[in-house]
Amino acid sequence: MTNHAITFQPENKTASVRTGALVIEAMRQAGLDIAQPCGGQGRCGRCAVVVEAGDVRRRSTLRLSQADLQAGYALACQAVVEGDATIYVPKPAEESERRLVTDKTARKVAVPFPYAYARDQTVQAFYLPLDPPTLNDAIDDFARLQRALEARGVRDLDIPLPLLRELGQRLREARWAVTAIVETDNWRRPGGPPRLIDLVAGNQAETVWGLAIDIGTTTITVYLVNLLTGEAVDNAAEYNGQIARGEDVISRILYAGKNGGLGELAYLVGKTINEVIRRLAQRNQVETGRIYKAAVAGNSTMMHLFLSVPPASIRLTPYIPAVSHPLPALAAEVGLDIHPLAAVDCLPGVASYVGADITAGVLASRLSEAEALTLFIDIGTNGEMVLGTKDWLVTCACSAGPAFEGAGVVCGMRATAGAVEEVWINSRTFEPTYRVIGGTKPRGLCGSGLISLVAELFITGVVDKGGNFKRDQGTPRVRLGEHGPEYVVAWANETAAGRDIVLTKVDVDNLLRAKAAIYAGFTVLAQNVGVDLAQVEQVLVGGSFGKYINVEKAVQIGLLPDMPWERFNFLGNTSVMGAYMALLSREARAQIKAIAEKMTYIELSADNTFYDAFTSALFLPHTDMSRFPTVAKIWGNGSEG
Amino acid sequence: MTNHAITFQPENKTASVRTGALVIEAMRQAGLDIAQPCGGQGRCGRCAVVVEAGDVRRRSTLRLSQADLQAGYALACQAVVEGDATIYVPKPAEESERRLVTDKTARKVAVPFPYAYARDQTVQAFYLPLDPPTLNDAIDDFARLQRALEARGVRDLDIPLPLLRELGQRLREARWAVTAIVETDNWRRPGGPPRLIDLVAGNQAETVWGLAIDIGTTTITVYLVNLLTGEAVDNAAEYNGQIARGEDVISRILYAGKNGGLGELAYLVGKTINEVIRRLAQRNQVETGRIYKAAVAGNSTMMHLFLSVPPASIRLTPYIPAVSHPLPALAAEVGLDIHPLAAVDCLPGVASYVGADITAGVLASRLSEAEALTLFIDIGTNGEMVLGTKDWLVTCACSAGPAFEGAGVVCGMRATAGAVEEVWINSRTFEPTYRVIGGTKPRGLCGSGLISLVAELFITGVVDKGGNFKRDQGTPRVRLGEHGPEYVVAWANETAAGRDIVLTKVDVDNLLRAKAAIYAGFTVLAQNVGVDLAQVEQVLVGGSFGKYINVEKAVQIGLLPDMPWERFNFLGNTSVMGAYMALLSREARAQIKAIAEKMTYIELSADNTFYDAFTSALFLPHTDMSRFPTVAKIWGNGSEG
Repeated sequence: MTNHAITFQPENKTASVRTGALVIEAMRQAGLDIAQPCGGQGRCGRCAVVVEAGDVRRRSTLRLSQADLQAGYALACQAVVEGDATIYVPKPAEESERRLVTDKTARKVAVPFPYAYARDQTVQAFYLPLDPPTLNDAIDDFARLQRALEARGVRDLDIPLPLLRELGQRLREARWAVTAIVETDNWRRPGGPPRLIDLVAGNQAETVWGLAIDIGTTTITVYLVNLLTGEAVDNAAEYNGQIARGEDVISRILYAGKNGGLGELAYLVGKTINEVIRRLAQRNQVETGRIYKAAVAGNSTMMHLFLSVPPASIRLTPYIPAVSHPLPALAAEVGLDIHPLAAVDCLPGVASYVGADITAGVLASRLSEAEALTLFIDIGTNGEMVLGTKDWLVTCACSAGPAFEGAGVVCGMRATAGAVEEVWINSRTFEPTYRVIGGTKPRGLCGSGLISLVAELFITGVVDKGGNFKRDQGTPRVRLGEHGPEYVVAWANETAAGRDIVLTKVDVDNLLRAKAAIYAGFTVLAQNVGVDLAQVEQVLVGGSFGKYINVEKAVQIGLLPDMPWERFNFLGNTSVMGAYMALLSREARAQIKAIAEKMTYIELSADNTFYDAFTSALFLPHTDMSRFPTVAKIWGNGSEG
Repeated sequence: MTNHAITFQPENKTASVRTGALVIEAMRQAGLDIAQPCGGQGRCGRCAVVVEAGDVRRRSTLRLSQADLQAGYALACQAVVEGDATIYVPKPAEESERRLVTDKTARKVAVPFPYAYARDQTVQAFYLPLDPPTLNDAIDDFARLQRALEARGVRDLDIPLPLLRELGQRLREARWAVTAIVETDNWRRPGGPPRLIDLVAGNQAETVWGLAIDIGTTTITVYLVNLLTGEAVDNAAEYNGQIARGEDVISRILYAGKNGGLGELAYLVGKTINEVIRRLAQRNQVETGRIYKAAVAGNSTMMHLFLSVPPASIRLTPYIPAVSHPLPALAAEVGLDIHPLAAVDCLPGVASYVGADITAGVLASRLSEAEALTLFIDIGTNGEMVLGTKDWLVTCACSAGPAFEGAGVVCGMRATAGAVEEVWINSRTFEPTYRVIGGTKPRGLCGSGLISLVAELFITGVVDKGGNFKRDQGTPRVRLGEHGPEYVVAWANETAAGRDIVLTKVDVDNLLRAKAAIYAGFTVLAQNVGVDLAQVEQVLVGGSFGKYINVEKAVQIGLLPDMPWERFNFLGNTSVMGAYMALLSREARAQIKAIAEKMTYIELSADNTFYDAFTSALFLPHTDMSRFPTVAKIWGNGSEG
């Protein structure tokens, strides 16, 4: 078998691969990185390249139009090399424009409960002026350290071998006056024995740092916490470096199953976290070696990848995680660039699709202390929801697909500069007005824009209850496009790319399925415990969803239940907040374990009533309009106006 | 500065070093290995080389005679390169003839107490046919494993991250029928939580192996133990690979303090142990990956080097080990080539010079259960001794120097082929008869030969109580040599090397100091607890010393107290036996911890009475002859005969 020479333009890089290799493999060999949001399944179309010359067979063209194919486009993850070729790699559009909202927000976070370092914190610093050894007091170094700590109430100290190897030298160089950093106990071993994390010269008991980390599928958020005061002195966020290997958890799981994929994803998430840590450490003048503890939350797949545990079985029925309650780990084991012996506490999850981000959210939202019937929801690519009170909790998860995050939609994009985030439609002319993130020319529709647009189209009667376009409105905005009926949000001359931004019938159907899955989840939860959704007294919304979504619009499309606005409470990132609470207090950490154990998980794919609830919800806003009285009222007006 | 070319003969290897480099450094560069029994201090003379041509400055010539110097000899560790040179490296004499007595002895060792695997052993194997997951039983893999183990009485299992990373795959590949190897608890965490060591497919609960390891300064001994039956199915021994870097612990500590020295010594001891393990595994067809536990004994320095913990402070007053009670370790952490997660249990010591070999010896000798006043002794380069009963234990250690191991003596050698191991002297003619190990021509004197010879010289009146040669005996065997008065044991024509084998006055003084230190130790111990040595009802002798030493002779020189022979009990390697017991039973392991904690250590250098006891013992057999009634009687006869 001979090799084929592949040349990539415009960078003029080359690779040599055998017949049957994928173009994406040749690109890797040539040192070219390209985003694969779908994990190489040929579904997202983001790895499109132009075959300028040569033999390349297209395995799938699902995401390419006829015009694209005529222009030479191929998906790098689906294109098979069959001879020498020259391939043009377009510059990625979004890369340089990424921007995170968290970096705009206030930096300090208040301590969420009364915090007393000595009482609440498992990581303690003790300044120990030791008696130097003499012939009459010749116990070994480790016993001397233990004796001094016993006088401070710390018994039976454990010492990791790497520290034991340096113990003698550290004690002598410090002239027997040292600060011992000790993990006195953890949730796994509530009674101890305590474990030595570090031993530093002199009195350095006033410098003990910790981190609260939320590993989101899209965004990683880190709080830098002074463990003595409990204050989160700073926080920062960054896009999860794994995005380039898959935008949703399913794509990541598939990628992890490829040769070397797991290692790469584990490396990428670690790299992102470490970059955020470095940034926080630099701007707060904190030595990373003095960060002695981290509490980590995230969905089950993110936790698996962070721990380098294969997530394969999460994806396949019966949807089994390798681990829901990860054990205490050390920073060095999981690749965090803080003190290598720092305690890393991964919070527990409930099931494959109800992870530690949700248990952390239940803790942070105080749902588990609520007297009133409460619904907690976290909507992203997956929708997770918890219904309950302080006495009981039921939970389920449903795959909403990527529509709410701007993906899987013809003109979809993430909520970055150029994304249309809100739309209003004139009910007489059907002309739209819109708001664009960053105030630039529009480039596409993000999740909130999509919800807003569909709600407006419905209320103004452009689409009907079934999501079908009414073609008799007498406006050029509604037309028949390549993918069927569509509504033009922005004409080519108004847009950044010089192409029309449209919402197609297919997009509307995608959104309908997404919102129906979420709403069906609420319905099944309520049915399972025999309550009516209308009885819910408060809806706590975690995640970034609530920050940008207009609740009114979300109710209008039937995504959220129809109830007075004052019952909705938007809490922001409850996952990192739960991790922060767990970082500070063993009590909070115990609570989250109790929450995880107490939650009853309902597997929707095994629930007989889910499919009925789902199909009933595949309408705007729902088959049963009596569930949406306020919408029925407006809609009546809108459709008449 | 220019480099100098050094050529080594007969192998014609070369090195290029700067002015001031040591010849030994040039040899290393040239890839030539040479033994450094004294650790490079210029004391042992084993690294002697011949400078054939060139500029080499001799920093110390302590171990070289005038004749040696004239012949061009230099000590490689003390010779400084000052120009180009050609150096002849003599072939090491002992290397190929090393032979260990343990390999001659019976291979199997009987279980030392009634042993019931399920009751006594901390490492347990459980065959678990698991229920595969379903939608209605969708707990995570780790929880499923825990649930099955809970049904077997094992609660709250810990799983190391490397195993968690493979858990899902192992369970599925085994089709949910696995054998879990679990450390249910250890001495550090008697109540658990248990720790998963391995997970293998199918029912393999009948194959669980362990190791008992004694790391001697000279010899490493390993028992291969079937943990189900408790039987030591085989054992093997090998010279400690560290010998080439120092023969006694002090030399090793000095070597460890050199740049890279600690790492090298840790590597060498691991290499030796792993070689013995491989040999045992091969000849018993045992997979090393199925060895799940090891118990390790050794003196404090050996334990430090095994754990890669710097031993520097052991050597310097006030003689402080970094650790006396090492914590449970994993095989991978300490470089043992068995299952990487195998439990490695290092036994506890008492002080810098009373290590785990002695606590293991006390356990194995059952001194800690004795009703009668008992003396336990282990004599090698150091003499360690314990006096006590089941109610109390006192211990001390004294440096005997290497005389008992055949070093530090002009014609000394280790107890290998060619060593004179016993001598008889005709009391009229003063002519000797001797026995040689291996029945070959004699090459030198080993420790037992030395004791035997000095006893005979004393009994026959060739030397007096003070160790001085009486020069008026009318025999050519007593003469004035280069080092002063000496006795010729074998004439040149009888010997392997063609040179006289002699015992010098200096050698006798060395031996006197060695035995005086030991005997003074006994005296101080007895005085400290207010008993008389004569009250001792049994003397338990551990170590290889007792295997070869003639007790009568040892009493005659005043090394051992003068008491009826039946009170002496030679137990062999009690260190490995103690490790074996600790390997088998958590009860034995707890006992050894209690022994270490209970022993009162007396530091002789801080004891006012030691020096007096030592000087009183610097005679044959002692200043106070009433302490040695049987010797007084024979001696009277001998000197009159």
